[in-house]
Parts: sequence; C-alpha cells; structure tokens
Amino acid sequence: MADPRFFHRAGPFSLSELAEKAGAELRAADDATRLISDVAPLATAGAGTLSFIDNRKYLSDFATTAAAACLVAPAIADRAPDGVALLVVKDPYRSYALLAALFYPAPETVAGIHPTALVDATAEVAEGVQIGPYTVIGAGVRIGPGASVGAYTHLEKGVEIGAGSRIGPHCSLSHTLIGDKCLLHSGVRIGQDGFGFAMGPQGHLKVPQLGRVLIGSDVEIGANTTIDRGAGPDTVIEDGVRIDNLVQIGHNVHVGAGSVLVSQVGIAGSSRLGRFVVAGGQVGIAGHLTIGDGVQIAAQSGIIQDVETGAKIGGSPAVGIRTWHRQSVALKRLATGKGKESK
Amino acid sequence: MADPRFFHRAGPFSLSELAEKAGAELRAADDATRLISDVAPLATAGAGTLSFIDNRKYLSDFATTAAAACLVAPAIADRAPDGVALLVVKDPYRSYALLAALFYPAPETVAGIHPTALVDATAEVAEGVQIGPYTVIGAGVRIGPGASVGAYTHLEKGVEIGAGSRIGPHCSLSHTLIGDKCLLHSGVRIGQDGFGFAMGPQGHLKVPQLGRVLIGSDVEIGANTTIDRGAGPDTVIEDGVRIDNLVQIGHNVHVGAGSVLVSQVGIAGSSRLGRFVVAGGQVGIAGHLTIGDGVQIAAQSGIIQDVETGAKIGGSPAVGIRTWHRQSVALKRLATGKGKESK
Amino acid sequence: MADPRFFHRAGPFSLSELAEKAGAELRAADDATRLISDVAPLATAGAGTLSFIDNRKYLSDFATTAAAACLVAPAIADRAPDGVALLVVKDPYRSYALLAALFYPAPETVAGIHPTALVDATAEVAEGVQIGPYTVIGAGVRIGPGASVGAYTHLEKGVEIGAGSRIGPHCSLSHTLIGDKCLLHSGVRIGQDGFGFAMGPQGHLKVPQLGRVLIGSDVEIGANTTIDRGAGPDTVIEDGVRIDNLVQIGHNVHVGAGSVLVSQVGIAGSSRLGRFVVAGGQVGIAGHLTIGDGVQIAAQSGIIQDVETGAKIGGSPAVGIRTWHRQSVALKRLATGKGKESK
Repeated sequence: MADPRFFHRAGPFSLSELAEKAGAELRAADDATRLISDVAPLATAGAGTLSFIDNRKYLSDFATTAAAACLVAPAIADRAPDGVALLVVKDPYRSYALLAALFYPAPETVAGIHPTALVDATAEVAEGVQIGPYTVIGAGVRIGPGASVGAYTHLEKGVEIGAGSRIGPHCSLSHTLIGDKCLLHSGVRIGQDGFGFAMGPQGHLKVPQLGRVLIGSDVEIGANTTIDRGAGPDTVIEDGVRIDNLVQIGHNVHVGAGSVLVSQVGIAGSSRLGRFVVAGGQVGIAGHLTIGDGVQIAAQSGIIQDVETGAKIGGSPAVGIRTWHRQSVALKRLATGKGKESK
Repeated sequence: MADPRFFHRAGPFSLSELAEKAGAELRAADDATRLISDVAPLATAGAGTLSFIDNRKYLSDFATTAAAACLVAPAIADRAPDGVALLVVKDPYRSYALLAALFYPAPETVAGIHPTALVDATAEVAEGVQIGPYTVIGAGVRIGPGASVGAYTHLEKGVEIGAGSRIGPHCSLSHTLIGDKCLLHSGVRIGQDGFGFAMGPQGHLKVPQLGRVLIGSDVEIGANTTIDRGAGPDTVIEDGVRIDNLVQIGHNVHVGAGSVLVSQVGIAGSSRLGRFVVAGGQVGIAGHLTIGDGVQIAAQSGIIQDVETGAKIGGSPAVGIRTWHRQSVALKRLATGKGKESK
Repeated sequence: MADPRFFHRAGPFSLSELAEKAGAELRAADDATRLISDVAPLATAGAGTLSFIDNRKYLSDFATTAAAACLVAPAIADRAPDGVALLVVKDPYRSYALLAALFYPAPETVAGIHPTALVDATAEVAEGVQIGPYTVIGAGVRIGPGASVGAYTHLEKGVEIGAGSRIGPHCSLSHTLIGDKCLLHSGVRIGQDGFGFAMGPQGHLKVPQLGRVLIGSDVEIGANTTIDRGAGPDTVIEDGVRIDNLVQIGHNVHVGAGSVLVSQVGIAGSSRLGRFVVAGGQVGIAGHLTIGDGVQIAAQSGIIQDVETGAKIGGSPAVGIRTWHRQSVALKRLATGKGKESK
C-alpha cells in the first residue's frame, strides 16, 4: 500500500460499487458485496486489493496474482485464475485510473485564507477557496469556487483562476486567465514578457509584449515550466492539454486541445499545434509553424517545417518516422564500412 | 487594445510628438497635432492607432489598413493608402518598439520597502527602491537607485544590484554583482556552486567554487534560468546580453556583449562566447570552447569545437550551416533509396 | 583571493598540517611550519598560496609559478621550480579539493528556527538545525541533526531530511525521504505527481501516483531540477549521485550510486541507471530502459535502447562512441561531395 505518511487512503468499497463506478460488468468469484481496500499491480497485489491487466505481456502475472479483483478486457477475461473477481471493461487502464482515484483522491481543498496571505482588498475570492501561507494575491484577481493556491504563489493583478483549479506552491502568474479544474505544479512561471526584441548592433530593444496567456479547463502544467505571454495576440493553451516539467512555451504559441508535451519540450514563438498533438521529451519546435491535429513527434526531434495532420515524425531536422529509422540504419552502415550492402 | 486588466496605457500622443521621439520624417495625411491613442498590427489596427510595416510580405495589409498612422521605410512609403499618416524611418520595427513603449511603459517602480521584507541592517538601499513582500535581503547587500526587487526574492550577503534594475519575484541570488537597468524574470537562480568535482570511484569530492557572477548593464535573463558562479575566475555576462527562459550557464563561462541565448540553451563550464553571438533554442555548447564574435548557431545544435568569428553553423556535432543542410538532404536521400542520384 | 564579500577564508595552515590532511609527502623548500594563507591556480598564485598541477599541459605555468606550495604527482615532482614546497600525492586535484575546503569551508549551519518559519507542531526538528525565514514545514516532517532548510522552502507533510543535509532556498519537497549530508540547490522540485495518464480522445485521465522519492546520502541536486515521485514503485536516487541544474527525472526512475547527470538531462519514466553512469549535458533517456554500470553518454545523445555495462555511447539515437564519430565524418563527407573517397 502507499506510504501512509504521504497518502490518505479512502474506502473500502464493495465490488458492486467499484463495478458501477467503472461501468464494468462484474463477474464475481463470490459475492458483489465483498469489500476491496486498496489497489496494487498484479505482481504485488495482496488480499483485498484490486488490480488491472491491459497488456498480454502480463498474462503470467495475471495467472498467479493474489489480487481479490481485477479490471480486465473481455478478450482475456477467460485467462483469469480461480477466485479472482473480474470487472470486465473495454479499457481496463482507464478504469483503473478512475477507481484508483477513489481510493487515493486528490488532496482535499480546505477552505480558508492563511493569516500570512497578502490578499488585495479588490481581489474576489469565491466560496471554498484555499489560500496558502505567504501567498501574494494582487489587485483585481479573481479566484473561482473550490480553487486552491499553494504557499508562496504570486498572482499578479488581474489574474483569474477558474473553479476547482489547484495552483501549486512557488508559482508566479501574471497576465493570465486560467479555466476550471486545472492543476499547476510548483515553480510554474506564466505570463512573463515574451522574448521579443528589435535586434541590432546598437542594442536589442524590447518590444512591449501586450498579449495574455489564456489557459483552458482541465489543463495540467508541470514543475518549473515557463509560458510567455503573447506579443499582441495571446498565448493559448486549450482544454485538456498536459504539459510536463521544464517545458518552454514562447509568445503567441497556440496548443490545441488534448495535446501532450513531455518534459523539456521547447516551442518557439507563434507556432500553432493542432488537437491531440504529442511531443516527446526534449522536442524543439521552431517559430511560426503549423503542426496538424494528431501529429506525433519522437523525443529529441527538431521541427523546422509545417507538419501535416496525423503525421508521425522524428529526427533533427524531423522527417517521417520510417524515414528517420532508415536514416539511422543507413548512417550506422556508412560508419561501419558496410555501406555497399545497401546497393 | 491590450487588456486593461493587465496593461496601463499612456497617451494619447500627437503625430508630431511620435515622429520626434522616433526620429522619423512625418508625412501627415492631415495635421501633425492629430492624436494617436494606441498601437496595433496593420491587420487589426483601428481608428486612432499607430502601426508599422517592416516586411514586404505585409504590403497587402498595408494597402487596406485602417490605422491612423504607420511607421514605414522610405522604399515603400509610396505604397501607403490614402489617409494614413506616415512616419518614415530607416528601421520601422525598432522605432515601433520605441513608440510602443511610450504607450505601454514598463511597470513603474513604486518606492518603498514592504513591511514583510526582511532587510539586514547592514544592507544599503538607495533612494527610490521598491522592495516587495516577503523578500529577504542579506548582510552588506547594495541596491542602486530606482531598482526593484520582487516578492520572495532572496539576495544573499554581499549581492549588488545596479541602478534601475528590476529583479523579478522568486529569484535566488548569491555571489553576484549586477549592473544597471537589467531585467531578471521570475525564478532565476544565480551564483550557486558550479558543478565542480574531483570525481572518482571513492566518491565525487566538491571543489570549492570561489568565483562570482558578474553581470553587466542592460542584461535580460529569462524565467527559471540558472547561472553558476565561477570556480575561481568569475562567470561573466557582458552588457546588453539577452537570455531566454530555462537556460543553463556553467561556471567560468563568459558571454560577450549583445549576445542572445534562446530558451533551453546550455553552456558548459569555461566556454567563452564573443560579442553578438546568437544561439538558437536548445543549443548545447561543450566546455572550454571559444566561440567567435557574431557566430550564429541554429537551434538544437551541439558545439564541440571552437567556432570562428562570423560563422553560421548547425547540427550536432555542428558544421557550417550549408554543409548541415546538405547533410540533411543527403541523409534523407540515403534513407529513401535514392542514394545513386547524388553521384 | 576570493571576494571577501562572499567568502570567508579560514586558516592560515602550516605546510605540515596541509600535508597531513592531504596524506601527501612534504618536500619543503624551507621548513614545515611555514604558513599557507590561501589557494590559487598556478598562473595567478602569489606569495603564501597553495596551488596544484594535475595535467602536463600546465607544466609551463608550473615552471614559473609564484606559489609557495604545490600539490603534485610523483611523476612530475622534479619539474618544480626552486623555492616551491611540494606536497607529493597520487591525485593532486582530489587533494586540492580537500585542502581548498579547509580554507573555504561550506557555509556554517547556525542553529535556530527563524521566527517567520511556520513549523507544524508535529514536525520533529533535531538539535542544531537551521530553519530559514519564511519556510513552511508540514505535519510529521522530520529534520535530522545539523541539517539546514533555506528561505521559502516548503517541506510538505511527512518529508524527512537526514543529518547534516542542506536544503537550499525556494525548494518544494513532498513525498520524499532524503538521507544524510545531501545538498539541494535553490528551486528544486521533488515529489510532485509523475506524468502518468490513461490517454484517450475523451481526455487524459490522471493515474494516481502512489510512490515516493527516496534519496540516499551525499547526493547533490542542482538548481531548478525536478524529480517526480514514483507511480507505485518509488523514484530512487542512490548515494553519492551528482545532479546538475535543470535536470528532469521521471517517475520510477532509479539512478545508481555515484552517477553524474549533467545539466538539462532528461530521464523518462521507469528507466534504471547503474552505478557511476555519466550522462553529459542535454542527454535524453527514453522510458523503461536499463543502462549498465559505468556507462558514459556523450552530451545531447538520445538513448532509446538498453546499454551494456561500461559502454561509451553518443549520438541520437545513440551508438558506440567510435561509430558515432565515424558517422559524423561520413555524413560530412557525403554532404561535401567527397563521398567516393571512402570506398
């Protein structure tokens, strides 16, 4: 089980409750009122715990698991060992995510403003909001119902936080409007000046950056990530986007709904990503590009051209993923003196 | 116009005032006392606004703009539509930067020390300095006239900040001397130990890092960037340098005046960049190298050798920019079985 | 000498004291009671200072140094100029690290809890601990003897810090147990949710991250580095590891003892590094890989396969270091039309 110093476990829950929450068909070994007290991987699951299998390579763990119950896809339900209650469902991992969050819910928001918080008189703080110690909340800031603001976080004037959003500790936000149910981890910097200069040998003159950062709902942003405000247009992060740690997003960038940016990705100014784009770790995307919906980019790739909807690409500069793999093979052959074999 | 929740607009200014400030020749459609109230791009400019054109690809926007006035180079001034007052000037974008800053000046420094600031009795704070809430200012720190220090910023003992410099919130500075009119964004870390160890199987022993970080005047440093102090010599950032977010600068590095380091660049220990070097995003520069004046490095490049003055390079390991482009083409050809065509 | 505004120098020490501490054989030019007051590089060393030589390329500096004493390997001891006392030792650089730390010891921990620190009543703070201003120490936190916690650092509930560890300012730690004598620089984020989602077109559902971060003893972690907690297993950093600035370590990653991760390295979830692995700057390691003991990875490399013990690799995707160098040569030849020469 999870370390009780750090995690509060809820429950137990009955098999029937869990099946209902997951929208699963219950094939109980015994009875539907049996109580489940925890979640665990197949290999380490013990009495009273719920597990899941979503990949055939774990079939041997499945065959010998000591779990009391298991989320499983219909196609392999018959491979279950005796005595394991089955919750049969189309997408076991997704259902596991849902049920694990019943046992280990996100930290509760405890309404209240810490006495050391400096909240401007003109800020509007809704019901049920938690404001942590040593926060600084500027003029005209609006914080929606049930939201929370972590220790030391600085919301500069005019910033808006939607209902139920959780802003971690040590964040700096300015020129930013955030939707509902977002999660920002610690050390996130949003809304600072974009990197816009009239460059020249007599010095680089700052061009005033007059846009904002607009963040949708259900967006998650990782620790120490930085998002610059727009230069005139806004920088936009649409609903459901997931951004990992140490990511950089330049001014005027637009990230489409459901996109996923893995750690240390950098996106230069004014590029536009479609919906459900996935960029692997350390990917770099040059400025003023258009990346189509559903594009998948291998880790460390460098994108210097527009990319068509649905393309899978890799390399620096990036090419189609199959071409990229062939390039690596060809290059290795060339280096090891086996170049002629390819002709 | 810029969102008034976040931006305070000054003005209006008369055409003649603006022309004078920009050093532009005024070719007014009507009269020089006409008032201009805002700045905007050509395509979205409305009545009473000033715009600019610095690239022929926007000539069609220029032809149909509703802007009241426009900064324009002499060569295309005759392409202006009727009714637009022209401010004819050699470098319209630079002049735009200058005039936009009249309408939207940098946030004003409001002299005063917040009551929650912890300022050591031996610190010297000049006239007109703004010190934000929950700051910690150590022994012997000196802060020049008109400078500002953001919330939660920690200036450790002996740090000096020059006149008019603005240090953002959440910064940590130690062993550092900063010149005048610098701008540090939030979360900047300067002056920590460089990564210097006597490595060995019995453990990696720290070598005391006895240098400082010397930062010139008119330097801008992006959010969450880290600059280590020197090992014995100093780490030096000369005047007018622009450093973007999430950049890493190792111990003893010397960055020449006017250089530009885009986001996520990393420079290893003891390398020396000349004046007006430009490094694109995610560039890595190995240690103990010399990069000449005016060198331009394509994004994501990896530099493992000295680079001559004025060179343009790309790739990892980096080569001349033209060679790099040819490499990419040749590699693609090789991968797609069209290798013979190149012979 | 080091700037006295920033560094406190101890000493002087006699030659015999220094030789004893370093385990060196003293070959004194005059007498063993002579006092040494500072350390300095060969080229800039003055009267009364100790220097070192560990590389033959500095023999000319050695020949002309004004240092009073010098750490030197036996093989080149006879190249010393007259009048320089020699401390003859096997590994002069390591001995220099040791002796330099006598003159410039790490900042002293001053026991005491700053009055602005918010320390939960259930936290256990041992003897001799220093807790800085504006810190927030949560429920059940345990801090070992002689440890220190910098300004603004947030230790969330249950976090443990071992004896003598120094946690810098502006850090956020949760779900984390740290051993003895560690050093964390400013802005480090440890223990936040790993990037674990059940992804899908209907949205990316968070999978509760139920593990911890376990950090051994004598570990150093650089500024603004981020380490996510485990998803179920723990994220583990073993003893003696050195992590530079702006590094990202994903959930469930295991870093073996004595490994060194240079700045901006990223390690994706569940990868396992052996002992004494060295990863150069900006290296990316994909998820679920095994990297053997003693592996050395060139800067900017991308690792997408398991790597055998002791291998030296480079490139993206990485290959053996010699193959990588040959690839670079072959590619350049191909691009410059000199391809035929290689056949």
